[in-house]
Amino acid sequence: MTRTAGELAQYLGARLVGDAGAKIAGVANPEDASDGDLIYADSAQNVARATESHARCMVAPKGARADGKTILEVENPKLAFAKAAAWLLPKPDPMPGIHPTAVIAPSAKISASAYIGPYVVIEEDVSVGDKSQIDAFCFIGKKSRIGSQSHLRPHVVLYAGAVLGDRVEIHSGTVIGGDGFGYVFGEGRHWKFPQTGTLEISNDVEVGCNTAIDRGSLGATRIGAGVKIDNLVQVAHNVSVGDHSVLVSQTGISGSTTLGKFVVVAGQAGFGDHAVVEDNAVIGGQAGILPGKVIRKGQTVWGTPARPLEKFKEQHAWFARLPELARRLRALEEQAKEKRSGG
Amino acid sequence: MTRTAGELAQYLGARLVGDAGAKIAGVANPEDASDGDLIYADSAQNVARATESHARCMVAPKGARADGKTILEVENPKLAFAKAAAWLLPKPDPMPGIHPTAVIAPSAKISASAYIGPYVVIEEDVSVGDKSQIDAFCFIGKKSRIGSQSHLRPHVVLYAGAVLGDRVEIHSGTVIGGDGFGYVFGEGRHWKFPQTGTLEISNDVEVGCNTAIDRGSLGATRIGAGVKIDNLVQVAHNVSVGDHSVLVSQTGISGSTTLGKFVVVAGQAGFGDHAVVEDNAVIGGQAGILPGKVIRKGQTVWGTPARPLEKFKEQHAWFARLPELARRLRALEEQAKEKRSGG
Amino acid sequence: MTRTAGELAQYLGARLVGDAGAKIAGVANPEDASDGDLIYADSAQNVARATESHARCMVAPKGARADGKTILEVENPKLAFAKAAAWLLPKPDPMPGIHPTAVIAPSAKISASAYIGPYVVIEEDVSVGDKSQIDAFCFIGKKSRIGSQSHLRPHVVLYAGAVLGDRVEIHSGTVIGGDGFGYVFGEGRHWKFPQTGTLEISNDVEVGCNTAIDRGSLGATRIGAGVKIDNLVQVAHNVSVGDHSVLVSQTGISGSTTLGKFVVVAGQAGFGDHAVVEDNAVIGGQAGILPGKVIRKGQTVWGTPARPLEKFKEQHAWFARLPELARRLRALEEQAKEKRSGG
Repeated sequence: MTRTAGELAQYLGARLVGDAGAKIAGVANPEDASDGDLIYADSAQNVARATESHARCMVAPKGARADGKTILEVENPKLAFAKAAAWLLPKPDPMPGIHPTAVIAPSAKISASAYIGPYVVIEEDVSVGDKSQIDAFCFIGKKSRIGSQSHLRPHVVLYAGAVLGDRVEIHSGTVIGGDGFGYVFGEGRHWKFPQTGTLEISNDVEVGCNTAIDRGSLGATRIGAGVKIDNLVQVAHNVSVGDHSVLVSQTGISGSTTLGKFVVVAGQAGFGDHAVVEDNAVIGGQAGILPGKVIRKGQTVWGTPARPLEKFKEQHAWFARLPELARRLRALEEQAKEKRSGG
Repeated sequence: MTRTAGELAQYLGARLVGDAGAKIAGVANPEDASDGDLIYADSAQNVARATESHARCMVAPKGARADGKTILEVENPKLAFAKAAAWLLPKPDPMPGIHPTAVIAPSAKISASAYIGPYVVIEEDVSVGDKSQIDAFCFIGKKSRIGSQSHLRPHVVLYAGAVLGDRVEIHSGTVIGGDGFGYVFGEGRHWKFPQTGTLEISNDVEVGCNTAIDRGSLGATRIGAGVKIDNLVQVAHNVSVGDHSVLVSQTGISGSTTLGKFVVVAGQAGFGDHAVVEDNAVIGGQAGILPGKVIRKGQTVWGTPARPLEKFKEQHAWFARLPELARRLRALEEQAKEKRSGG
Repeated sequence: MTRTAGELAQYLGARLVGDAGAKIAGVANPEDASDGDLIYADSAQNVARATESHARCMVAPKGARADGKTILEVENPKLAFAKAAAWLLPKPDPMPGIHPTAVIAPSAKISASAYIGPYVVIEEDVSVGDKSQIDAFCFIGKKSRIGSQSHLRPHVVLYAGAVLGDRVEIHSGTVIGGDGFGYVFGEGRHWKFPQTGTLEISNDVEVGCNTAIDRGSLGATRIGAGVKIDNLVQVAHNVSVGDHSVLVSQTGISGSTTLGKFVVVAGQAGFGDHAVVEDNAVIGGQAGILPGKVIRKGQTVWGTPARPLEKFKEQHAWFARLPELARRLRALEEQAKEKRSGG
């Protein structure tokens, strides 16, 4: 959608410096931009880099100037740029219809405004809401429910009974609602613990590629509203992830662990079972949270086992100086020995 | 299947306290149970929680009492509950038949009691045993063999020549028998080492979602009977996993590493190549086993590089006290200096 | 293809000891070999093991002898064996043709010598080069380009606009060109950063199973020529991997990180964003590279945060001796106390 710089400034609450009538139709980075693309600079260094761009308009911090560019001055240029992109390039409604190769159970209820792609399989008693899009090769197990304006990319699997809200996007290869990994050992073998629970994903959740989110064993696995989950993440049975939390790639969360709201988990972090992470906590990359551990509200932790970041840094600084500490200890021992033999 | 509390007590070898004629048709957790569901409590605390449940019958430790509940007293309530669930809710035989959209090579041998779902592709010389179930979008490469009562969930891939036993369950997105990751560097490039080996999965194995198990490069990759593998696990070429071992999510096992029987590997653990883990060993979460390392029978290890748990704990306790040790060392140095200058 | 030992010696530049006319048709390990298979031994110990093999011909280090075997003497037996395997068992051209169940947009350009398997979906404006092979259930998003002699195994997904070179092999379950994981937090929610960039994979790249390689958010993600990527690897948006680098299983690379040429990354290593790894560096298993960190040319690093291997080893040796250091410190403190009270 083409907008003018003036319209965009109004939408973003930005101060406009330059040509209010300049046309903007897309977004790009400075190197690849054409004159109708919006670019952004979040630092003085990047403003300089932007000067050479073909783009006519840029979002920039207050006071930034670039020869011949129309500037939209804002507090947070990257945020304004993301908002501008969402406004300029809204996700189009899907072309409604059901591909003739889709295999759909008669009892499934598919909205007339939904799109069902080639080679989709939809089982009994599934419902798909308005303007939702189910791409090729998706498998939707029986009794699953998908809200409106949601989008399943090619090759997504929903096990039976999965419940997805509105505006949920699931990327390719991800499996939702698989059996939890629970066994009880006895009589020389592993007995499968019943895996008959449920799986609920709230509105505005995005899940990356090749991720696995298991349903509850008994009870539910719950992903809160606005949660963002990256590629190759593991979410086990009965986990609860609070609203607007973020799980970066290759993170693994064991059974019955609970994350609060606005929690940020960096890549490859691992959580034992029954841990509790309170709101706004930050878990560092590759950190390991022990089973049953509680991470307090707003705390930043790192390391395995995880501890407050400042503590970890201090301990780790001494770890790096261990050879020096050992030499100093040795020197004291030598002195003491000399003194004894000298005495 | 509906049973009476008396029948169940007999099956479990439990002591019945209460109404032997109470009907039981399913399992649930206390909060979600209806009166016909069996629940369990494994501690006094959970017995209290169970008292408020709608369920009439519960499995509980010896001596547990809950007003109005029929109690099945056992040594290990969680085990008894899992066994009861398997008995009350046996996996039904699949509806036999081949979906008309399945593409099956004429030379494939499919048991008349097997189920082949929509959009399954089965190549030449494959065999599928009695009462096995191959769900939608599975790809079964040529010469693969699947035993009886096995179940491949939607979107499973078997590379050519994979051999699966009886009662094997593979969850969605998992790839079995892929090429091993082996190259030899020379003349400025990586030459692929031949990946022409085999892959064998024994009876009663369960494999989670989006896991990858490569076949042998030369020779075989072998997964023993009763092994349980979680989601997103990597098993490389020529690995051998002994009977009844357990691999938790995101674990990675490098080429030619051997695990004994009843080994337990916690989440995100990593193994170098040619390591050996003896029977009944336990590998902690995120632990790193060096290439060629031997973990002795029954040992529990943790950390990277992995070491016996007690050693790791002791070393790690001192790691956390490093700032204190450094202060104490400094104090001694100051004393020694004073003494010298004082002397 | 059957060759004689003499032909093979000439191809490999090997010195032949034995029967130049011996026929060789395949490769195997010593235990499984039939008389027409080539085997290899890279050490004296393995030469002994090879003596009992049915194979008549073996590649071996200079001076190795085994009764009755024809020996091909070379500097690097494993390399020669891999080269011999590639020569004896060249990858066959695919059977050209398009399976009748494939759903292909009219604007797609498929080479007449390419193979398109059952239940493949190819969108608008895709091109597939000569002798390339697209196996069952692959999804090729619009405007993607696949070079010649490339091979997509069953269940590969290319998002729109992915560009693959020649002789690229992608294994099952891998997703290429997914959305990068980028959000900007503001006004109580995560705004998606635009993910409109590109994805380029150069010639002779091999990618394992269930891996995820995201396209650029703005700009490009680039995988250089000859790169080898294992199973379950995460490559984020705007990452650049230099020619002939190797990424072992479960490695994760965050956004905008750059790897040089001939870099080797062991399993489960993790990289923060905007890190730089120079040519020929080696990253140890489970190592953690901090955001923005630079790893110098040819350096080998280990640990989290990663540091030069020799430093890590020295520091870690002292970590293992921390209980001893603490005891020694305590002893000095006791001595000093005695002296003080004694004085």
